[in-house]
Amino acid sequence: MARLVLKFGGTSVGDIERIKNVARKVKQEVDAGHQVAVVVSAMSGVTNQLVDYCRSISKLHDAREYDAVVASGEQVTSGLLAIALQDLGIPARSWQGWQIPIITDDTHAKARIQRIDTTEVAKRMDETGEVAVVAGFQGVSERARIATLGRGGSDTSAVALAAALNAERCDIYTDVDGVYTTDPRIVSKARKIPRITYEEMLEMASQGAKVLQTRSVEMAMKHRVRVQVLSTFEQAPGSDYPGTLVVDEDEIVEQELVSGIAYSRDEAKVTLVGVEDRPGVAARIFGPLTDAAINVDMIVQNVSEDGKTTDMTFTVGKADLDRTVQVLEKAKGELNFRRLISDANVSKVSVIGVGMRSHAGVAQRMFKALADRGINIQVISTSEIKVSVLVAEEYTELALRALHTAYGLDAA
Amino acid sequence: MARLVLKFGGTSVGDIERIKNVARKVKQEVDAGHQVAVVVSAMSGVTNQLVDYCRSISKLHDAREYDAVVASGEQVTSGLLAIALQDLGIPARSWQGWQIPIITDDTHAKARIQRIDTTEVAKRMDETGEVAVVAGFQGVSERARIATLGRGGSDTSAVALAAALNAERCDIYTDVDGVYTTDPRIVSKARKIPRITYEEMLEMASQGAKVLQTRSVEMAMKHRVRVQVLSTFEQAPGSDYPGTLVVDEDEIVEQELVSGIAYSRDEAKVTLVGVEDRPGVAARIFGPLTDAAINVDMIVQNVSEDGKTTDMTFTVGKADLDRTVQVLEKAKGELNFRRLISDANVSKVSVIGVGMRSHAGVAQRMFKALADRGINIQVISTSEIKVSVLVAEEYTELALRALHTAYGLDAA
Repeated sequence: MARLVLKFGGTSVGDIERIKNVARKVKQEVDAGHQVAVVVSAMSGVTNQLVDYCRSISKLHDAREYDAVVASGEQVTSGLLAIALQDLGIPARSWQGWQIPIITDDTHAKARIQRIDTTEVAKRMDETGEVAVVAGFQGVSERARIATLGRGGSDTSAVALAAALNAERCDIYTDVDGVYTTDPRIVSKARKIPRITYEEMLEMASQGAKVLQTRSVEMAMKHRVRVQVLSTFEQAPGSDYPGTLVVDEDEIVEQELVSGIAYSRDEAKVTLVGVEDRPGVAARIFGPLTDAAINVDMIVQNVSEDGKTTDMTFTVGKADLDRTVQVLEKAKGELNFRRLISDANVSKVSVIGVGMRSHAGVAQRMFKALADRGINIQVISTSEIKVSVLVAEEYTELALRALHTAYGLDAA
Repeated sequence: MARLVLKFGGTSVGDIERIKNVARKVKQEVDAGHQVAVVVSAMSGVTNQLVDYCRSISKLHDAREYDAVVASGEQVTSGLLAIALQDLGIPARSWQGWQIPIITDDTHAKARIQRIDTTEVAKRMDETGEVAVVAGFQGVSERARIATLGRGGSDTSAVALAAALNAERCDIYTDVDGVYTTDPRIVSKARKIPRITYEEMLEMASQGAKVLQTRSVEMAMKHRVRVQVLSTFEQAPGSDYPGTLVVDEDEIVEQELVSGIAYSRDEAKVTLVGVEDRPGVAARIFGPLTDAAINVDMIVQNVSEDGKTTDMTFTVGKADLDRTVQVLEKAKGELNFRRLISDANVSKVSVIGVGMRSHAGVAQRMFKALADRGINIQVISTSEIKVSVLVAEEYTELALRALHTAYGLDAA
């Protein structure tokens, strides 16, 4: 007997039949003797509808009110799933964030979980075998206002609850059956990864793979919560772990050099031409962007040719590009650059694997594979377990396929 | 300056434009210097949708989970209206039942308000002039579960809040501009009643006029809350009280003999023929119905002709008729009646007025007016301020028009 947390996303609870299907999956785990807590998202489409309501009343809506409005979607599914479970003879009750409580800070609309008091929930699971159906995505601030965790926050709710309940595993049920070596819609030879480390999953998520929310992976890594990503809709094929397990490096016997290849079309490139080349220039450029809450990702500073000026290139989110240009043009007098060039037609492609820590030549293989296809690399950035390059957007698919083959990831 | 509670029903907040319209109405009261609390229903159609979800999962759904699901509709509108008010420059915040808190008993799905702790809400209204936007229809039980007050419960929320806040008045905004002498869709000469007593309004509501929920009128009467029923959609025509004021008898200068004529098609008639005529028979008949939570309304016991048996006629809600017949047929052996006759094609028509306390002949005028049109009276029941008769359903409109004229209520 183990304690499990199961999380079902919006597509999995998209209508009444699907909610009943989820109840049957939960019943299987209960019948197997497990103590189960379930975290649910809103029915698919509902959150978007609610967000639209808020926006159409006011673009500058109060985030606390926005939270009260959008958190209602998860409230509905938690109640409905509890009813569906009871209908199958499984004792169950719904829990809203404020009922448990899941205490958050008060940065509304993107709140962070501070702590979860599982005393009551755990007691009821222990004593009555009742399934706790928890509304995902939401908590309550110290001021007793409803707070939401930002889009995709239900993954984080689930992992945080698994950590607080000291659960054996957190199963994230979704519409794909696991984490793939790369996007199977683009690379037909993509393979499902049976096991992946927290570090790799974190890079995959933050480099564009949308299967898990980045923050949920950070939290899983921090609290060493074993996470499984698996499909709500496909039958489990007998295996203990039909999906992808996200686990500690120790749990992975055969480690690949590169585990996966991620990509993101959400990048835009900005180059400041003819910036003065002297200490403090980077701080003066990026200070105003930080103040405007614009995240800068890759940064490259060219070697100065004349010893006086240099070019500075960096990437920002595509949605932030217009604001970035505005902020920089406004500071032009102070920053003293000659020209600003921006380009939204770029993609970031990243190869990721803990194996590259102990192996040289991983980046070199990437550069060669891209060069062989005539793909020009615009910006490079690396971390201990990742190499990312920026390429023209039109080469995205070609680059993914070339790299997938180059690192021996193609399915047989 | 006065403290006001305004309540807006589902049609009034039916879409984003209407919510903005409500915000403008609230702003008028704030601009006039009033302290304002607003109670809102769910957007029209939303509650029905949520109820359908629950029913389609399980007919025997847990009322506590049903409450968590359906209460979400009011949560959404409270947040949206707060945003709309802020957008007009009016400080506002939403309050869910558990946040105030509005404490209820735990008869979920038809909970009763036990008490409202207005300390925090009143403090913020006093100190900051903030408008409190309160989710109607919902509260929280002592066990910290969400509880709803039953359909139409937002009227009760509003009146209870007005009582707790010691408000000068509770304005119930709806899609009609007041309480009418009878249904204007049937009787074209129906007039809006400028002022009506609590007692009359209570009879009007419980006899079929759907403009206010019965329980909200009871509560208004108990706490002497002045209530106004008025239209969200029509401009107020200069008068201080454009709608109908529901007030104490003292506030009404010229009291009519009869204030209004209500009707209900929701009745069904049951007759038990040949019941033993001895003490305790009524208790034995109605005991099983009470146990089955079936409300019995009008009751008539015929005079016994043979000294041994009698006929017992009574009415129940049309929706309860099938169950009523089942319960009684099951108890037939014990109750020892000869035959059960039921008839769902009946209407109850009631004339209501506190004036009849001091005037004889009110009932007689009713019987004569109906007899003149050849309408047969099946059952009669009276109270101090009301005479109700049961007639064949097809005579409903004719009866209403005849009575409206007979009591001098026709508009000039």
